[in-house]
Amino acid sequence: MKGYAPLSDEIINALVNALGSDCVIQGREKCIPFGEDAGEDKRVPQLVVEPTCPEQIQELMRLADRHRFPVTPRGLGTGLAGGAVPVFGGVVLSLAKMNRILAIDRKNLIAVVEPGVVTMDLKQAVMAEGLFYPPDPASLDTCSIGGNAATNAGGPACVKYGTTRDYVLGVDAVLPSGEKISAGVRTRKGVVGYDLLHLLIGSEGTLGIITRLILRLLPLPPCTMTIAAFFPHLDTAMDTVSRVLAEGHIPSAVEFLDQKCLALVGDLLPFENAVNSGAFLLIETDGMQDLAQREIEAIGSLCVDCGASEVLLAPDSQKRQRVWEIRREVALRIEDASPVYVPEDVVAPIGGIADFVSRLPELEREYGMSIYSFGHAGDGNIHLNITADDPERRAMVDRGIEAVLRLVVSMGGTISGEHGIGVAKKRFLHLELLPESIRLQREIKKIFDPKGILNPGKIF
Amino acid sequence: MKGYAPLSDEIINALVNALGSDCVIQGREKCIPFGEDAGEDKRVPQLVVEPTCPEQIQELMRLADRHRFPVTPRGLGTGLAGGAVPVFGGVVLSLAKMNRILAIDRKNLIAVVEPGVVTMDLKQAVMAEGLFYPPDPASLDTCSIGGNAATNAGGPACVKYGTTRDYVLGVDAVLPSGEKISAGVRTRKGVVGYDLLHLLIGSEGTLGIITRLILRLLPLPPCTMTIAAFFPHLDTAMDTVSRVLAEGHIPSAVEFLDQKCLALVGDLLPFENAVNSGAFLLIETDGMQDLAQREIEAIGSLCVDCGASEVLLAPDSQKRQRVWEIRREVALRIEDASPVYVPEDVVAPIGGIADFVSRLPELEREYGMSIYSFGHAGDGNIHLNITADDPERRAMVDRGIEAVLRLVVSMGGTISGEHGIGVAKKRFLHLELLPESIRLQREIKKIFDPKGILNPGKIF
Repeated sequence: MKGYAPLSDEIINALVNALGSDCVIQGREKCIPFGEDAGEDKRVPQLVVEPTCPEQIQELMRLADRHRFPVTPRGLGTGLAGGAVPVFGGVVLSLAKMNRILAIDRKNLIAVVEPGVVTMDLKQAVMAEGLFYPPDPASLDTCSIGGNAATNAGGPACVKYGTTRDYVLGVDAVLPSGEKISAGVRTRKGVVGYDLLHLLIGSEGTLGIITRLILRLLPLPPCTMTIAAFFPHLDTAMDTVSRVLAEGHIPSAVEFLDQKCLALVGDLLPFENAVNSGAFLLIETDGMQDLAQREIEAIGSLCVDCGASEVLLAPDSQKRQRVWEIRREVALRIEDASPVYVPEDVVAPIGGIADFVSRLPELEREYGMSIYSFGHAGDGNIHLNITADDPERRAMVDRGIEAVLRLVVSMGGTISGEHGIGVAKKRFLHLELLPESIRLQREIKKIFDPKGILNPGKIF
Repeated sequence: MKGYAPLSDEIINALVNALGSDCVIQGREKCIPFGEDAGEDKRVPQLVVEPTCPEQIQELMRLADRHRFPVTPRGLGTGLAGGAVPVFGGVVLSLAKMNRILAIDRKNLIAVVEPGVVTMDLKQAVMAEGLFYPPDPASLDTCSIGGNAATNAGGPACVKYGTTRDYVLGVDAVLPSGEKISAGVRTRKGVVGYDLLHLLIGSEGTLGIITRLILRLLPLPPCTMTIAAFFPHLDTAMDTVSRVLAEGHIPSAVEFLDQKCLALVGDLLPFENAVNSGAFLLIETDGMQDLAQREIEAIGSLCVDCGASEVLLAPDSQKRQRVWEIRREVALRIEDASPVYVPEDVVAPIGGIADFVSRLPELEREYGMSIYSFGHAGDGNIHLNITADDPERRAMVDRGIEAVLRLVVSMGGTISGEHGIGVAKKRFLHLELLPESIRLQREIKKIFDPKGILNPGKIF
């Protein structure tokens, strides 16, 4: 990857003239917050552009194309793989101010939104209309729909409802050249030419800048039921998950914590001895009141049959919040407790989670790291939070991470379920993809971005 | 598009030597059936290759790459857009003999299959394990999973369960160069690099040859309930569909027939005056017995509220078959009745179906054609069967088809919901896609197939 010259004063003036000074942020101090996401990597951009309409993005990209400077699109900076970090400096294109919900169409069950809409704002707006937008990444209070689409974000609801990809019917996007395209449809289905929509989704802002999304909505499930179950061992918990799915239940969440994670949140647990459990499952069902209730009861019985030591029903929304707090607090506490903290998010085949996790202690010993496992047991997506006490051990931990990723790939899994590759996992791409796949992807990048100006330095 | 020289005897000998004579079919008579699908276009290939393993496909493509002859992949020939028709002659690559179900993995809820497996065979095999593969194109008794993936086939179940795309987790494919790639994952989610999987799905065999598919399965819904409802007018039927969805029901099928279609199947209708109805809806629910029953009853009441003249419950599987026969028989009878018959499959926004269909009579008069409308009301996918009595009117009908497609695009719809573009709709691609989108797609085709040997002459 060749370097990029800093933007000259002339170019900056041209930008300000073309876009208006209101949407150009200059000065190192003001630019610093736009140079990092929720992961480890950071870099200060030379300039931040914060447009309010697609035409300004087109102007920006035409200038970038003419003068060949890098532009890194940014949603709300909650990514964990450095996808929004401007690794070559240049311009960060913040989409935070393009945050209007343009339409909620009850008759056609779609919403039309700008990319900067906060995920939770959309969820609440459609809920007020009796509708449901399922994707629920952990950062849903602060992340954006555009960022969710760029990384194909998932979340606990994925086990029943799928990921962001399954809810984006169509997008408008600006290409690196400044040209506009539409991809996908406004309707429930369509097969007209190649699927550029799904190429854009999950491409981490390297192929085009999404300026508008058409989202599929569902009717709002009238009721959600929640149980918390504690197990003596992780493998009995995972056997339970397999049995729940095999018996035909489709829960709307199946989250787990391993023993190490439980130890960190002992004060939040509902009874004294819970902290000594080997694993914790949080399971939800949704739908019509009596069905959701009957289903959660059946799942609760299965938990007991499979050896759960305690199964607690969260009877109201307050109790439900407390159960979810256990799950949500874990990641924060792991990060706070460890000088070295690397959030990985592998996916194992569901039936292989327990086996995979049981092989981690050996790798922990070998590489001097500590691995906290929690996440989405229902779809096999495990958030491995890899930590070490001593920052000087970092190089060894990195080798340990590679060993973990090799293990999951060898078991038929994948190295990222929802965080993406960004800059943080670039060096691991070859563990999963064949050289020919990587070659095709690089060629596709060149078609969309022949000058290498849009979010350079990512994925490959 | 440049022409292709016929295969020389040397090349044919090289093919027979490399692949074995068992899988090479020669002779015009034997090749004729491999040159057509269920649409209008046909062309006799020079040779048919019917491999039993991916390595033979690699050998074939290496020879095609070296000698630059066209290869057209073919599932089981049930497509309606000519996607499997060898428009430039050369070799048809029939995948009919790669038809093994390699694994049904209950624990991980996946199936691994070869592309030639008949869709119904897979549905029945997984059903025997208590599992469910939802996609159900009309031709499911005779079409193949590989063909379904190549065209992203849908069907009545799409309204609840989505299209084939939603059930393919990963594929192995052979590229035009003979190289193998894997795309997608074996797990429930993954976001590692660009989405080559969804680029292959729906690409109508123009980018690569799918040799193995990893399919997502669901638990089998224990019960299905069916009603048939007759309405005085199409618009009241469509209002009913909108209300059913808006009230939070997610039926597993919502099929409709218009008045013209009903007139063709009068003998199959359950009561004497039914043939004079303005529209017919076939609605199903599935899931746990009592829930599916309660939901179908609620939907039945909504039908009556909205003005249905008759609502009949199909109480057993025999009655259910008879209701479906009405829906299935229509397409056959339209085709039999008309010298000119063009099956279009537009998608309109759900809320706009009645409006769209109400504007068709004007176009029928203007272009001297007759349009039978039926299809998947729940997702807006309307099969417009366009006919004329006089083959000499064909040119005018073609102009009429263009007018119909322009109309649906102007209303926010799409020109193909599940048949694809193939060769039949190439000339209409520009009605829906911007020139820049088409340019990107052509460039992508060149990356995968720089010599233009894989299914040339399609889509663009």
